[in-house]
Amino acid sequence: MREVAIIGIGQTTIDEHWDKSLRVLAGDAALAALSDAQREQVDGLFIGNMLSGPLNRQENLGAMIADWVGLRGAEAVKIEAACGSGGAALRAGLIAVSSGAMDSALVVGVEKMTDTPPAQTTAALATAADADWEAAQGLTFVAINALVMRRYLHEYGWKHTDFAPFSINAHANAVYNPHARLQDPISEADYNRARMVAEPINLLDASPIGDGSAALILVPAEDLRPNGHPVIKIVASASATDSIAVHDRHDPLWLSAAAESAKKAYAQAGIGPAEIDFFELHDAFSIMAALSLEASGFAERGQGPRLGLEGQVRPEGRVPIATRGGLKARGHPVGATGVYQIVEVVEQLRGVAGGSQVPGAKIGMAQNIGGSGATVITHILKAEA
Amino acid sequence: MREVAIIGIGQTTIDEHWDKSLRVLAGDAALAALSDAQREQVDGLFIGNMLSGPLNRQENLGAMIADWVGLRGAEAVKIEAACGSGGAALRAGLIAVSSGAMDSALVVGVEKMTDTPPAQTTAALATAADADWEAAQGLTFVAINALVMRRYLHEYGWKHTDFAPFSINAHANAVYNPHARLQDPISEADYNRARMVAEPINLLDASPIGDGSAALILVPAEDLRPNGHPVIKIVASASATDSIAVHDRHDPLWLSAAAESAKKAYAQAGIGPAEIDFFELHDAFSIMAALSLEASGFAERGQGPRLGLEGQVRPEGRVPIATRGGLKARGHPVGATGVYQIVEVVEQLRGVAGGSQVPGAKIGMAQNIGGSGATVITHILKAEA
Repeated sequence: MREVAIIGIGQTTIDEHWDKSLRVLAGDAALAALSDAQREQVDGLFIGNMLSGPLNRQENLGAMIADWVGLRGAEAVKIEAACGSGGAALRAGLIAVSSGAMDSALVVGVEKMTDTPPAQTTAALATAADADWEAAQGLTFVAINALVMRRYLHEYGWKHTDFAPFSINAHANAVYNPHARLQDPISEADYNRARMVAEPINLLDASPIGDGSAALILVPAEDLRPNGHPVIKIVASASATDSIAVHDRHDPLWLSAAAESAKKAYAQAGIGPAEIDFFELHDAFSIMAALSLEASGFAERGQGPRLGLEGQVRPEGRVPIATRGGLKARGHPVGATGVYQIVEVVEQLRGVAGGSQVPGAKIGMAQNIGGSGATVITHILKAEA
Repeated sequence: MREVAIIGIGQTTIDEHWDKSLRVLAGDAALAALSDAQREQVDGLFIGNMLSGPLNRQENLGAMIADWVGLRGAEAVKIEAACGSGGAALRAGLIAVSSGAMDSALVVGVEKMTDTPPAQTTAALATAADADWEAAQGLTFVAINALVMRRYLHEYGWKHTDFAPFSINAHANAVYNPHARLQDPISEADYNRARMVAEPINLLDASPIGDGSAALILVPAEDLRPNGHPVIKIVASASATDSIAVHDRHDPLWLSAAAESAKKAYAQAGIGPAEIDFFELHDAFSIMAALSLEASGFAERGQGPRLGLEGQVRPEGRVPIATRGGLKARGHPVGATGVYQIVEVVEQLRGVAGGSQVPGAKIGMAQNIGGSGATVITHILKAEA
């Protein structure tokens, strides 16, 4: 297995792109990544996407996007793992390049969610949960997370407002990210008076959906050519699953797939949580930020909110998270999110994150979650000295 | 890259399985494959599926199926490439095992298509084509293939009835396949009087959809343990793409992605078409059988039907195809089809194909196509002496 480096990144803003089709969005990010990498072609494409079938009436995205970006003929495939599709696409591309099956890969995450009526989009998102045992009972995806958050508040004695720092930090960082969906800072008062979505989750606990695409170029580290960027290697990649239905778990407040994938990733990289300079986690809801911090070894079980309250999740803290806005403020175009996370890790490691730059960032971790913890993919990236 | 062997196969019948959910179907095939391999666990699952989102309201199939078959926690992902999803899932699993990223993989193809109204299924199938430039004009998937077949008849001077041998052979072979959807032989008279679907494609040119699942167990060849089966290795795996819309191609009668993937596969295996003992091709429509034979080097351009008319595609002929019924008679549960093809190649190489056994079969090829030639995956398998 060869070492693999990320030599190019691209992304669109996350917005309601009613003027751009799925292929145009994907193409904008892919061509930006190729340009950033100073390459014109790749051996294979890995497309992370969840909802193009039900929302855009388009499958076979691999062939379509390869052709659109001028790579007709190249091997291409779509990877789906619900909201973890982007991270899973990166992992598939990484295995292909590190194995020698390919000498370069373009990983694209793309999702177009705002052309359809909201009820249709909500129903489509529920396909990340168990159709027979969750969605069929009328549970939406936010309702499942609300049940988890309610249980967490009960079990560990936190108040809803204790989660405010996660959302405030995400919004504060997104101010410096021109690609973010929401670039406005919020206050604790804003958080506390936000309208309720599914109790106890209010509007400022929840990430906004959107249309967007992000892309990466992977090559073997032995094939690097000078292109003006620091060398950034993928030093760990690991994935694990859990039951798809939350009620099937021994402990609904413990993300065992996140714990397992993080444990494997730390072992591959030969480091522990203390060596991670920042952590792009999957804060689709504020409760998921707490659960991810705990499962990944940054906080004791039930103590995730403490990191927020102590200010440790801010760029200058001990465990900076959502440094470019996270899902909460950068936005959550579901199948694309995992690729946005990696683009943002690369921005930090290149030192171009502006006002939300993590000082001296050398090692970044990203964790992408499909469903309510059912599929989790963790990557660790490192900038060469 | 390590050599990889297939040590277990499993499959359900293809039918209208109204009594079995998607997870039960997938589990039946997966557990049969594990049992056949005499293994109890694998490192990773690769699920080939196209339509679970729009037809079954279920995504995140990887986590769901892993849990259902007793492998909760194992890495798992869904791979989509329209009707080529099964072949693409095998290729992803193969790369993971051959690279050393995993030491074993379960590849499952699954599709459940008959619980929804036919118009909904037809609309979902059209997502394999170009949503903006084909489906939006009212073209269904069969209509696109009908345009191609009409052009082929015009260009090369064949009559519709010249395609009859492909369908007759497929049905004759399916009589010996207990898992086939259609196990009745048909005559040339049946073919000629079949009702029209989209001129010139009639009912006996077209493959039937259905519910079904097939599964494979992959391990490194170095890790083989005696399990009562001959050793069967994957000696080539290659994928390529073409434009998704047929009108975008220089020649709509030439499957360039099939030609490219077959060419790469021959090079990997160090053989040519003459060394292939049988060919499980993607006969979703009889015209596709002809085009695949041509693109893969078994017939000259425009001469595919001649192989049928000369009897060369029958089990005792020079290029046996659809030896277990093919898509035409075994059935076409779209995202599962590519895995059924490989299961059937293994059956031939194990010598258990009964009345449609290819005498002395040692090397078999399978070609899985997503869309009208947009994504093509070719595999070559070889039985050890």
